[in-house]
Amino acid sequence: MSHLARSSASLRGMPTAARLLAFRTSTSRLATTQARCYSSAPKPKDAQKSTRSTLKFATLGVLAATAAYWSQGPVNVVECEASVAPKGEKRSSKTAEADKKRKLDGLTKDSPMRLRMEAFNKRLQAEITAELERLDGQGKFAVDQWNRAEGGNGISMVMQDGKVFEKAGVGVSVVYGMLPPAAVAQMRAQHPNIAVTKESMPFFATGISCVIHPHNPNAPTVHFNYRYFELGSSEGGEPVSWWFGGGCDLTPTILYEEDAVHFHQVIKDACDKHDPRYYRDFKKWCDEYFFIPHRGERRGVGGIFFDDLDDKSPEELFAYVQSCGNAFLKQYIPIMEKRKDMPFTQDDKMWQQVRRGRYVEFNLVYDRGTKFGLLTPGARIESILMTMPLTARWEYMHEPDLKAHARLMEVLRVPKDWVPL
Amino acid sequence: MSHLARSSASLRGMPTAARLLAFRTSTSRLATTQARCYSSAPKPKDAQKSTRSTLKFATLGVLAATAAYWSQGPVNVVECEASVAPKGEKRSSKTAEADKKRKLDGLTKDSPMRLRMEAFNKRLQAEITAELERLDGQGKFAVDQWNRAEGGNGISMVMQDGKVFEKAGVGVSVVYGMLPPAAVAQMRAQHPNIAVTKESMPFFATGISCVIHPHNPNAPTVHFNYRYFELGSSEGGEPVSWWFGGGCDLTPTILYEEDAVHFHQVIKDACDKHDPRYYRDFKKWCDEYFFIPHRGERRGVGGIFFDDLDDKSPEELFAYVQSCGNAFLKQYIPIMEKRKDMPFTQDDKMWQQVRRGRYVEFNLVYDRGTKFGLLTPGARIESILMTMPLTARWEYMHEPDLKAHARLMEVLRVPKDWVPL
Repeated sequence: MSHLARSSASLRGMPTAARLLAFRTSTSRLATTQARCYSSAPKPKDAQKSTRSTLKFATLGVLAATAAYWSQGPVNVVECEASVAPKGEKRSSKTAEADKKRKLDGLTKDSPMRLRMEAFNKRLQAEITAELERLDGQGKFAVDQWNRAEGGNGISMVMQDGKVFEKAGVGVSVVYGMLPPAAVAQMRAQHPNIAVTKESMPFFATGISCVIHPHNPNAPTVHFNYRYFELGSSEGGEPVSWWFGGGCDLTPTILYEEDAVHFHQVIKDACDKHDPRYYRDFKKWCDEYFFIPHRGERRGVGGIFFDDLDDKSPEELFAYVQSCGNAFLKQYIPIMEKRKDMPFTQDDKMWQQVRRGRYVEFNLVYDRGTKFGLLTPGARIESILMTMPLTARWEYMHEPDLKAHARLMEVLRVPKDWVPL
Repeated sequence: MSHLARSSASLRGMPTAARLLAFRTSTSRLATTQARCYSSAPKPKDAQKSTRSTLKFATLGVLAATAAYWSQGPVNVVECEASVAPKGEKRSSKTAEADKKRKLDGLTKDSPMRLRMEAFNKRLQAEITAELERLDGQGKFAVDQWNRAEGGNGISMVMQDGKVFEKAGVGVSVVYGMLPPAAVAQMRAQHPNIAVTKESMPFFATGISCVIHPHNPNAPTVHFNYRYFELGSSEGGEPVSWWFGGGCDLTPTILYEEDAVHFHQVIKDACDKHDPRYYRDFKKWCDEYFFIPHRGERRGVGGIFFDDLDDKSPEELFAYVQSCGNAFLKQYIPIMEKRKDMPFTQDDKMWQQVRRGRYVEFNLVYDRGTKFGLLTPGARIESILMTMPLTARWEYMHEPDLKAHARLMEVLRVPKDWVPL
């Protein structure tokens, strides 16, 4: 059984600089107020692609957690049960131990990518939550911090019932674990450099995830997630294989085309600095991923989605992912400034609640992160369902009765190229 | 492509006797105001048991609809796409044609069981909706009627935003279709008298489903579903195999133990008239079925659940299912009379909304009827999701803070024997 130190200390009111400092402290320094049992259950790589067959749980065995890593939502950690905890996972791995020391010594540009991505995620989380608090003017993020005995840590930050935001969750997770041979084999399909093995392999995953549901129906819901995964050799050292994944997407209740254009333009600019194909390819992938087949509509007006990205050097791709992550506030805040105080009708609010119902349907029925998390024995449900809206509604035979609402449905049914590809 | 006549005529305000008459008319007489394309997609029998492996869609092919028949909720009909409609299903089957004539001639106790069960379901639907309207005093059921060219018909009745009821759906469906060999083979596991075949087999399914969500958090949500299935020979005549299924369960927001006792006692009395084992066995099955693994809790305080029931003569089991169905108003109305006007706090209302969120989680993630319906191409989503509450809420890290609410959680975590087994 693994033990995890979990702090419910709140960073409320702490200024950004102090937060950054708090997040930069090594995980061993995190306040420990409550010991809990956690484990972890990684999503097999293959299940991340809808076109690939679903990996059966039977073959999964019980793995360490990377649900966080690949979820569309902030899945930060999954609790474990002693009876199912894999052997050799009870102690912190050599890599995790070495990384602890590296962090204490201070990171440089020559530090392993995993540590630089972890630091980036935590800095981004601190920046975004501070900015969201500023914008809200009233709501504060509650902070749950956790450590994982096998190696890893995380921070879940949730604001609920703010002035502007009905619910906003920003989570970061870092997981060191062992990946069973069956899961390794699944990953080989996308990463052929992974050698055939009958042994478990050490892995590392870190991700940042964010879902924001504002009160005002003129203001859109937004989601993003950026993540890094590596498979290591049992001796430590250079990873055998690694990749980045992530994306962002906007979910309006009332369609303002200029908002969709702005959201897409900012992320396109970020993509274009790194590869002219990225925006075009990942915009399409996003439209495909956030599809609700039983409704014949997309969850929102899209953005980008990518996975298994290893087509350039780690440095180049880290730069790309940083550009995407850093673009988020530029994508979202200007939209919020415009929409958060706009007048709305009771009809608009009802329509928002109906659309929230669709968000719930996508997350519970189709989202791979959520589905996998829910099916994982002992998963930390609160982290998995941080993505859910605070409120939702299901009307029988509801049809949007206002022109503005019907216009949204058109672009959800047939995705639009908001900016030239 | 099959064409279906769908009537949006409302039976609002029609007295029970007139409703019964309306429902007794042959389906060909139903008002036709709008032609739509429907098909149907039966749930393979095996997928009804959580202990059995899930039947892969690939092996399912595209079948005719019985989602309605076995769903925990009122899944009445599933739309079809021309491209996937199985051959030989475009015309009404011989059996369906013969049954139409039988219904015009008038049913007797010697009529085929399928027609008697269909008539029972429709009578029960009329009785229950009339009684619910009486109790509500304000809300009326909107009625959707449909015919299926291949044979079959249905009535979806939904009350939304009544005085007492936030949302109440009562649906009846009747489906004649062809079951592909793979699905027939799956059913053989529970019904070994089904011969091995490489041919599709005609089937018939009829079911009544009901989900009621009241406004007052003191008043519980309730669900029931009773159904009859038969596999026929291609020549018509006696069915090769047949069985009954169904159940009822109560989902309180605030636990009144006397309500749970009453609900269970009435259905136990109904069971005991037919077999002393039924209540004991089916109560346990119900506790197992309505379990939300990721929450470690049941959806509600249970009731009964059974399937594949063919251990007595059709007459005896029809009598049993009628006893169950007829018990419903006695189970539920006295509870509603007591609770519908009780005072409640804002805390109670919030807690109700959080519990509704759990209802949504069960229905979207675990309920076999809903899951199957959503995954079926062209499914009629409005019928499948009739079971959803009008409103629901997801709070991060919500814990019931009132003693009464915490008491509910205890019995959801460890099911209780409300009446002596």
